[in-house]
Amino acid sequence: MTTVPPAVTVGIDFGTLSGRVLVVDAADGRELGSAVHAYPHGVVDRALPDGTELPQDWALQIPQDWRDVLRFAVPRALQAAGVRADQVVGLATDFTACTVLPATAEGVPLCELPGYADRPHAYPKLWRHHAAQPEADLIVRRAQESGQRWLGRYGGRISSEWQFAKALQVLREDPAVYQTADRWIEAADWIVWQLTGEENRNPCTAGYKGIHQDGGYPDAEYLASLHPDFADFTAKLAHPLSQLGAPAGGLTAAAAEWTGLRAGTVVAVGNVDAHVTSAAARALDPGHMLAIMGTSTCHIMNSDVLAEVPGMCGVVRDGVVPGLWGYEAGQSGVGDIFAWAVRTATPHAYAAEARRRGLSAHELLTEKAAGQPVGGHGLLALDWHSGNRSVLVDHHLSGLIVGLTLDTRPEDIYRALVEATAYGTRTIIEAFEEAGVPVTEFTAAGGLLKNDFLMQTYSDVLGRPVNLLVSEQGPALGAAIHAAVAAGVHPDLRAASAAMGRLQPRAYTPDPARAAAYDLLYAEYRLLHDHFGRGGSDVMHRLRALRDQT
Amino acid sequence: MTTVPPAVTVGIDFGTLSGRVLVVDAADGRELGSAVHAYPHGVVDRALPDGTELPQDWALQIPQDWRDVLRFAVPRALQAAGVRADQVVGLATDFTACTVLPATAEGVPLCELPGYADRPHAYPKLWRHHAAQPEADLIVRRAQESGQRWLGRYGGRISSEWQFAKALQVLREDPAVYQTADRWIEAADWIVWQLTGEENRNPCTAGYKGIHQDGGYPDAEYLASLHPDFADFTAKLAHPLSQLGAPAGGLTAAAAEWTGLRAGTVVAVGNVDAHVTSAAARALDPGHMLAIMGTSTCHIMNSDVLAEVPGMCGVVRDGVVPGLWGYEAGQSGVGDIFAWAVRTATPHAYAAEARRRGLSAHELLTEKAAGQPVGGHGLLALDWHSGNRSVLVDHHLSGLIVGLTLDTRPEDIYRALVEATAYGTRTIIEAFEEAGVPVTEFTAAGGLLKNDFLMQTYSDVLGRPVNLLVSEQGPALGAAIHAAVAAGVHPDLRAASAAMGRLQPRAYTPDPARAAAYDLLYAEYRLLHDHFGRGGSDVMHRLRALRDQT
Repeated sequence: MTTVPPAVTVGIDFGTLSGRVLVVDAADGRELGSAVHAYPHGVVDRALPDGTELPQDWALQIPQDWRDVLRFAVPRALQAAGVRADQVVGLATDFTACTVLPATAEGVPLCELPGYADRPHAYPKLWRHHAAQPEADLIVRRAQESGQRWLGRYGGRISSEWQFAKALQVLREDPAVYQTADRWIEAADWIVWQLTGEENRNPCTAGYKGIHQDGGYPDAEYLASLHPDFADFTAKLAHPLSQLGAPAGGLTAAAAEWTGLRAGTVVAVGNVDAHVTSAAARALDPGHMLAIMGTSTCHIMNSDVLAEVPGMCGVVRDGVVPGLWGYEAGQSGVGDIFAWAVRTATPHAYAAEARRRGLSAHELLTEKAAGQPVGGHGLLALDWHSGNRSVLVDHHLSGLIVGLTLDTRPEDIYRALVEATAYGTRTIIEAFEEAGVPVTEFTAAGGLLKNDFLMQTYSDVLGRPVNLLVSEQGPALGAAIHAAVAAGVHPDLRAASAAMGRLQPRAYTPDPARAAAYDLLYAEYRLLHDHFGRGGSDVMHRLRALRDQT
Repeated sequence: MTTVPPAVTVGIDFGTLSGRVLVVDAADGRELGSAVHAYPHGVVDRALPDGTELPQDWALQIPQDWRDVLRFAVPRALQAAGVRADQVVGLATDFTACTVLPATAEGVPLCELPGYADRPHAYPKLWRHHAAQPEADLIVRRAQESGQRWLGRYGGRISSEWQFAKALQVLREDPAVYQTADRWIEAADWIVWQLTGEENRNPCTAGYKGIHQDGGYPDAEYLASLHPDFADFTAKLAHPLSQLGAPAGGLTAAAAEWTGLRAGTVVAVGNVDAHVTSAAARALDPGHMLAIMGTSTCHIMNSDVLAEVPGMCGVVRDGVVPGLWGYEAGQSGVGDIFAWAVRTATPHAYAAEARRRGLSAHELLTEKAAGQPVGGHGLLALDWHSGNRSVLVDHHLSGLIVGLTLDTRPEDIYRALVEATAYGTRTIIEAFEEAGVPVTEFTAAGGLLKNDFLMQTYSDVLGRPVNLLVSEQGPALGAAIHAAVAAGVHPDLRAASAAMGRLQPRAYTPDPARAAAYDLLYAEYRLLHDHFGRGGSDVMHRLRALRDQT
């Protein structure tokens, strides 16, 4: 008697520093094996490979690093899973976004053309390339002036990280590169092009990063108001959008050779790391919010309601799952703020204790903070060390701590900052609900899940259960789920997510007494939030302006 | 040819943990020799010498520790100075205040009576005994209800540290001790009684700590409203007040034997450490403010104008120098707050660098902070970690920092706290001037003078020159000046201060550019100060109340 080897799919998650490949059982999402390939060039933020120096705030990547994930990590993952190529029924990718590059009509990155290796603007711009702020400011100003309706779909702000700002920077600073680029394409779509040999465009990056709304891009008149030569910019984007989870094509012979898979293996439409994670977390139903919590937090939620939620990053039809409005919101600083606390307020004696006991500083501070009663430290903080995306959309705000006494200890500050980020999340949830978009479930994913105290605090502050995405490979699992849909193993994304996703429901539930105490503190947070964030006091802006003058 | 040995005076400064004796030339204040005697019992805040345990917030002292300063430190100081007893023309003391004790009609401390050694209330209560807060609250409430005019002389608040609150606590908790005590006397006056054999009372402690105003104490009707048996409390205080700098009497034979001085040597009227320092700093003229800067800051200033300055600690006629109104104000936390910053926000790497370079953490943080341009850290703090005495008189306020970013470093926080205390001083100076009491000179004394950066920052923030008291023995020198007046070497305190004091004028002068930048930041401080301290937001009180509930 022989067992039939299971059908599997491969999910490939292209992150900031590496690509991670996961092989899963296409029926139930069981994780069979994985492999990682670190990009040899990492983030290119000082100099090009040939030594050409880069200005401040730049961040580029090298396309060959991405191809090498296909060449090295896919075969290793298959081997680790003990899976043969003929078991693989589909392949899907997800990518950081907005990571975007200029390419020829054939999909060749401009930086790979002869004579372009020393042209910074010929390279892919990584999501965290922050040198296009003047362009982003102009985009918003002109949109306000001409009353562009799409602006409200982005909480009133177009980020310097997104496609239009980055492209406009290229046009302004290296018009020859701009003119040579037939295509301006997200890495999420470019990698699919590499795999299938054909251009394909996904609605997620088009919507969230490319200002594609209600079936089209911003019009030529508006674009000309940014720069005369920008009027026909969208010709570099124009392409039919495919549905998420649909097949984009089959593996080319070349890509089959790279990966060790069979030519013709189904490749799914491209997608974004945060957004595919919703499928991995079974968080695709309307009102089910997924919070991907790391250095910052990204919130993804589907809804059948369209509304303008204050400070959201974007709302896109079919942006996460076909047939629903996909919302994205965000907190600019979360884990980053805890890291700041460790950097700044972990005195010598604490560092020594942590070392002696084999704990990280985070673990030690968490342990010391966890036993306190709610409100026992007497502190309240605003979690704005990196500004505030949702709901205030103001990156010139700053952090605040009040309630300090001579008895205030490092663990008190650490706890107050954890709580502040939870208040920030609650503020976002309430903004959705006040805008008429119900939030009925809350699921957390990402690196901060390891911290039990933190997760319990979120449950207590939100006053609702917190579910967990229990996979450590959330994005790659989400991609593998998309691959299974593209391969026809499941009828659609929601069915595939239900079959293959990993949700631990109600991993944390609120303690009624703590939740009641946090209601009081949250009310105080909102008062400070509105005072410093909504015009009661403009001191944060004035302090920043003074700082920037010096 | 022989030189005539100079006439000298002896100043004895009774501090919190030790007594310090200084011998000076009575003509010019030249410091000839000194000695210190640490109190064997220090601060008695856990248990009496016999093991009787003390409640929280108690702080007592042992009278014999004080006598031992006379026995041990005075002879050693004379020896160190190379001075013979017959050169000593006068002796004066200063003491912490309000440090107060119950005594018999003969001046015997009750704790030295048979059968009282195990009675905590029979011991002297040190200034920082903080267990009489309920009594202080009642004293203020009843004074408000009955419209006591003296309340305004104390900024509207009577401290739990002062004579009436401490005495009322004795009455409530150990009425037998209260009844047995014929006298309720400041240690500042008790030590003079020990030296001269006769009771004497000084106007400084009577005024600042004993509610003696306009020639009398609070009346019996008011006192009865505090407790029926408190109606005749002031009989335990009643005694004519002597002028500061006047002779209280001559050394008794016993005291001469303790000290090695001649019987009959002139002893000056008692006084308080902060207040005698004004004489040492040549800061007795109207409008010359002295700031004694240590863990907290005490401001002393004379004026010919009587006014109710918001939040002052007290205004007393003849309280510092005869013929003028002596004002006292204070900042609850100064050096204490910098110590908190070192305790909380000196990370491991900084501690290691300081150790390697042989610096204190304060010195390292100061060095890193000093080079910054004004406003470069983008921070603003409220210096209320210990509450705020002047000008808000609210000990339930708390510290605040705004402007935090992921780039904020420990030295930025340290600098912002230094600046905050300077803004606090400027707020006090402006309160005096707005109340019609001009401040024309500013002199600093105390432990923080060593920090050049800090002193320069004060000058820049205040926008005025800062003079320094250059002696490290400010209080003892001030006492020695009082001794010289009592002995008739100088006609009065102002003349003696001019001859014997140590003032370095204009040690720091404001840098115009920095002062202009600080004007902007000070305006921001005042906005935050008024918002959180004057009713705009009561969040600090609510956070504290919540903390105290837990």
